[in-house]
Amino acid sequence: MSGWGWCDAMNIQRILVTGRLYAELAALLPDKRPDKAFRFVAEEELTANDFAWADAYVGFRPAGPFSLANLRWVHSLGAGVDAFLWKREWKKNVLLTRTIGSFGEQIAEYCLSYLLRDAQCHDVYAWYQEQRQWKPLAPKRLGEQRIVIYGTGEIGRRIAETLRLFGVSPIGVSRSGRDTPPFSAVCRHEEAGEALACADWVIAALPLTEETHHLFDETFFACLHNAGFINVGRGATVDETALIGALENRNVRLAVLDVFEEEPLPPHSPLWVHPNVIITPHIAALTSADAAAHSVLDTLRRIETGAPLANAVDVSRRY
Amino acid sequence: MSGWGWCDAMNIQRILVTGRLYAELAALLPDKRPDKAFRFVAEEELTANDFAWADAYVGFRPAGPFSLANLRWVHSLGAGVDAFLWKREWKKNVLLTRTIGSFGEQIAEYCLSYLLRDAQCHDVYAWYQEQRQWKPLAPKRLGEQRIVIYGTGEIGRRIAETLRLFGVSPIGVSRSGRDTPPFSAVCRHEEAGEALACADWVIAALPLTEETHHLFDETFFACLHNAGFINVGRGATVDETALIGALENRNVRLAVLDVFEEEPLPPHSPLWVHPNVIITPHIAALTSADAAAHSVLDTLRRIETGAPLANAVDVSRRY
Repeated sequence: MSGWGWCDAMNIQRILVTGRLYAELAALLPDKRPDKAFRFVAEEELTANDFAWADAYVGFRPAGPFSLANLRWVHSLGAGVDAFLWKREWKKNVLLTRTIGSFGEQIAEYCLSYLLRDAQCHDVYAWYQEQRQWKPLAPKRLGEQRIVIYGTGEIGRRIAETLRLFGVSPIGVSRSGRDTPPFSAVCRHEEAGEALACADWVIAALPLTEETHHLFDETFFACLHNAGFINVGRGATVDETALIGALENRNVRLAVLDVFEEEPLPPHSPLWVHPNVIITPHIAALTSADAAAHSVLDTLRRIETGAPLANAVDVSRRY
Repeated sequence: MSGWGWCDAMNIQRILVTGRLYAELAALLPDKRPDKAFRFVAEEELTANDFAWADAYVGFRPAGPFSLANLRWVHSLGAGVDAFLWKREWKKNVLLTRTIGSFGEQIAEYCLSYLLRDAQCHDVYAWYQEQRQWKPLAPKRLGEQRIVIYGTGEIGRRIAETLRLFGVSPIGVSRSGRDTPPFSAVCRHEEAGEALACADWVIAALPLTEETHHLFDETFFACLHNAGFINVGRGATVDETALIGALENRNVRLAVLDVFEEEPLPPHSPLWVHPNVIITPHIAALTSADAAAHSVLDTLRRIETGAPLANAVDVSRRY
């Protein structure tokens, strides 16, 4: 995307920074841009005054009395922007950008760690070790696993690239169904039945949009036969009640979940205690303070110089 | 290695096949070489008569009343040949070959599975899940890990290659200390102290020879500071008593062991119950029946035609 003609005119001057990293960013940003005014505020201490003051907002989500009224630029510290767009009206002429960083690589390592743990039978051997039993059984080779990846964007592609290194031929599922390297094949969700029926693993790496909300529902899970399911996209793409049913029916043999409809996952959720569910607290891709600072500064410079913005969000597509 | 001048003269005719895969090989070999005589015998049923009859032996180790007296070719079904050479006299003019296959890739997946499980904090999150606690802590990136690999042969190189894909700069340790890609650097054991002092992981992938026997001793472990230790080479390269001491002193924080001085690991070994030891029953690289058959037939054909033998063992080096 190039030539944000209106960017020069934006003339960003007052930047409000909040969220988990705000204190670290306070140590990193002002020295680099002494020409700008910054406010660094914890989410729970944001006031309407901050939003009246600022023309730019940097954070993980719209926090406190968030208002677009005076903003001209919003920069998401995460890769996902659904917190800003889901069930919210956006305002024309407010630029929304997101952090790209190394999320794809991080998520690929996360997925690979669970795929390999399973293929290498860690839990089976741990059980035999407890019994002091020597039972050689062959690990599975990763390259023999049939893996379907929902989402063929930056994250899905990076997972697929990593898996290819081990001989996997990953199948992608996307809105368009258009073939995209490094996937061996790409289809649309409506056409995925056959691939799902023989999948050893399904990896969900979808943004949250109206189309993807509860995409992984009872009908979807009924297509699987004893598959592993990993969600590194957004929690609300999964109907959690349907997932629990699928675990009971053995459509899903193991679920590895990093994201949830409600986060933190509430203590009463049955997912916590299900023997075939592994829960991690939304850590598959984390923004570091350095990566966040780099992304803010780089995006600001590009806005000011009219350079292409690879991380601008097409708000009409909502991701 | 090319031109085994004496190979034509070997004129192999009677092949004795034993070991875990003997029955599967009985279904795969004779059809392919109807011109040869085969005997397929379980290890525990081998007799002196079999060895008087055979001019070639195929197996994982010298079993039963093994004797080199009439043999002209011995083919190891595993990659390691120490079972044939360790504390045994070899006989000049008996060709020793080994199975190469995909051991390197298999062992690389084994190692990676444990490195990633640790970097991705699987066990920490499992503990939090039990408490229904949502505690986001950042996984470590594999590329930040400092990893030393003992052994720069086929196996060690393949592990290093795999790790490089994730940004690791692996340091190799070899007898010669000669720089070898894909290692970032290679040194000799005597020079490894500095690398060991800051290693997050040491991966042992050494054959068993007189030089490597108990190479990983008290002096070696004393160099480590809270490192992980993986052994995918041979059990007897490790002084197991010294390893247990090192686990107590926190020189070693976690040991992942696939091989042991005595296999199966005896029930009374304290390794079974140590909380920081993971035991697998010599499965990091397994020979499949298909790979074994392919290796036997290919080696036989090369012997007969005088083609180069990449899998011949230099018995004087004992690996």
